[in-house]
Amino acid sequence: MPIACWAAMAAKESLRPFQYEPGALESREIEISITHCGICHSDLHLIDNDWGISSYPLVPGHEIIGTVSARGANVKSLRLGQRVGVGWQRGACLECDYCVRGEENLCLQAVPTCVGGYGGFATRIRVDSHFVFSIPDALESATVAPLLCGGVTVFTPLRAFGVTPVMRVGVIGIGGLGHLALQFARAYGCEVTAFSSTPAKEQEARQFGGQHFVVSSDAQAMAKAAASLDFLFATTSVGMDWNALLNLLRPKGKLCVLGGAPVPLTVSPFPLVLGQRTICGSPVGGRATMTEMLDFAARHGIKAKVEVMPLAEANAAIARVASNRARYRMVLVN
Amino acid sequence: MPIACWAAMAAKESLRPFQYEPGALESREIEISITHCGICHSDLHLIDNDWGISSYPLVPGHEIIGTVSARGANVKSLRLGQRVGVGWQRGACLECDYCVRGEENLCLQAVPTCVGGYGGFATRIRVDSHFVFSIPDALESATVAPLLCGGVTVFTPLRAFGVTPVMRVGVIGIGGLGHLALQFARAYGCEVTAFSSTPAKEQEARQFGGQHFVVSSDAQAMAKAAASLDFLFATTSVGMDWNALLNLLRPKGKLCVLGGAPVPLTVSPFPLVLGQRTICGSPVGGRATMTEMLDFAARHGIKAKVEVMPLAEANAAIARVASNRARYRMVLVN
Repeated sequence: MPIACWAAMAAKESLRPFQYEPGALESREIEISITHCGICHSDLHLIDNDWGISSYPLVPGHEIIGTVSARGANVKSLRLGQRVGVGWQRGACLECDYCVRGEENLCLQAVPTCVGGYGGFATRIRVDSHFVFSIPDALESATVAPLLCGGVTVFTPLRAFGVTPVMRVGVIGIGGLGHLALQFARAYGCEVTAFSSTPAKEQEARQFGGQHFVVSSDAQAMAKAAASLDFLFATTSVGMDWNALLNLLRPKGKLCVLGGAPVPLTVSPFPLVLGQRTICGSPVGGRATMTEMLDFAARHGIKAKVEVMPLAEANAAIARVASNRARYRMVLVN
Repeated sequence: MPIACWAAMAAKESLRPFQYEPGALESREIEISITHCGICHSDLHLIDNDWGISSYPLVPGHEIIGTVSARGANVKSLRLGQRVGVGWQRGACLECDYCVRGEENLCLQAVPTCVGGYGGFATRIRVDSHFVFSIPDALESATVAPLLCGGVTVFTPLRAFGVTPVMRVGVIGIGGLGHLALQFARAYGCEVTAFSSTPAKEQEARQFGGQHFVVSSDAQAMAKAAASLDFLFATTSVGMDWNALLNLLRPKGKLCVLGGAPVPLTVSPFPLVLGQRTICGSPVGGRATMTEMLDFAARHGIKAKVEVMPLAEANAAIARVASNRARYRMVLVN
């Protein structure tokens, strides 16, 4: 039976209805009947082919929640009807040094969900069962969907770069990623400061977990926050004054870049050399980290703040993301 | 009795003989009768006031070896006549979080040897005994002197950034710092690759410990070395193509900036984000790391390759450093 979905037929075009025939179910595949799919900013980059990796028709959507509607002969770990999720990645070699350490997100043969096949703006999807994750009962489908990419993207650096609960963590950019970073960092036990150029976001930033709020366009407030942080999430790379961000770090502090915009990063080497500071980055997370993240979110009640729209209104929902009006993550439902 | 030394009387001037009266020996001070003092590139930056922290008369020299000629009433750890060394740093608060962890090099009140007082291009010097280090007998004075700054500068990142013997380490720039980085990384058990724009340095680079040698101006050779390194020392920041250096790193690889030149660093964020790569930097080392470094150098026979000149020829020796003719480190002797 063909799978109905929404696809961009060429770069930068609006989505339109599309369908494809999935063929025979492979032995390691799971078919998911999709109930929810988040919209990530990287879907917009893929639609526009900003990274040069897109092929068309392109079906976006990689924050997928649904139930198992079919499973291949060799899949033992998931049962029919079970609620599951899929994120940015649908495949990896599972044999390289990174894969065998549970860092499939760093595998050189990693296959993005919407590049190696059709994505989750659809009624169904088929994916290698290795990249299908059980969803804890405590998490609601609409608010967990964005954790499958956005959530694991902010959780992974906490694990990978040695963040500990004694640390002071900053989050700059209180949007789709930032509002999740505030929640995860606070639940992780850290002292959390939100930085935003939008003063009106203060109240919500505090609700998400920020104990402090700094208006990033206020030079005086930024100077006062100098050398106060051990770790700083930069959730966007557009329009950032990187030296000003490094200035917020204590010695040994780390600036973690998460943005996918193709803009260069320019800094003075002195804050790095003199203070043993670090600039790092991170993409999504491996399978073990995904499972940890979902468990951690369930234990701490972490959820995306979402606006829900029907799949048929995908273009309108994308427009809200493109214009930064989404508060804070759009989720499409079937 | 006044201390005879060589000083720059103003920025960018040649050194000339100078003397000062040290006054009463403080209770925590050690007076050292200097036998050897290395010339570090940072001495040139200080003479020229490149960093805006110099005051004049400025006596350079912070790779000091000599013997204890006097000790303050409260110094118990060193004895008269003992061979000792002093590096970049002569003081720190000894009370902040960094100091109490043995990371005095990161103390916000750290005092550079040649900024908080007169340096080691001199017959004697007085320094807080906390920053005077015993020198293992196995190390010769001339070849250990440069380890007090250059050596600990390349050893500290191995300890601070989690380098392990299973890793592949690169060193770009085979000069004063680079020839030491090759030795320390090799002794640390790593697989070591030297990168230089000077093909003629290959034989020596291999003697210092490089199992592989890549001509950094050879685009084909650089492409072949792509994604091969876990850790890369950039011993200079002048004229570096930072994206090309990031390209040498495997996922999770770290680029460590050591250069003190005030040139900005510009990179694409993608190698950081996609491969969880890191750009870091580091200044000298704390007291515990200094002691570890000296012990490690003694065990492994690590020594700077030096050219020795009398203190009276300091200006000629500095000229060799400025023109990159030193092979590989200049040492002044009394």
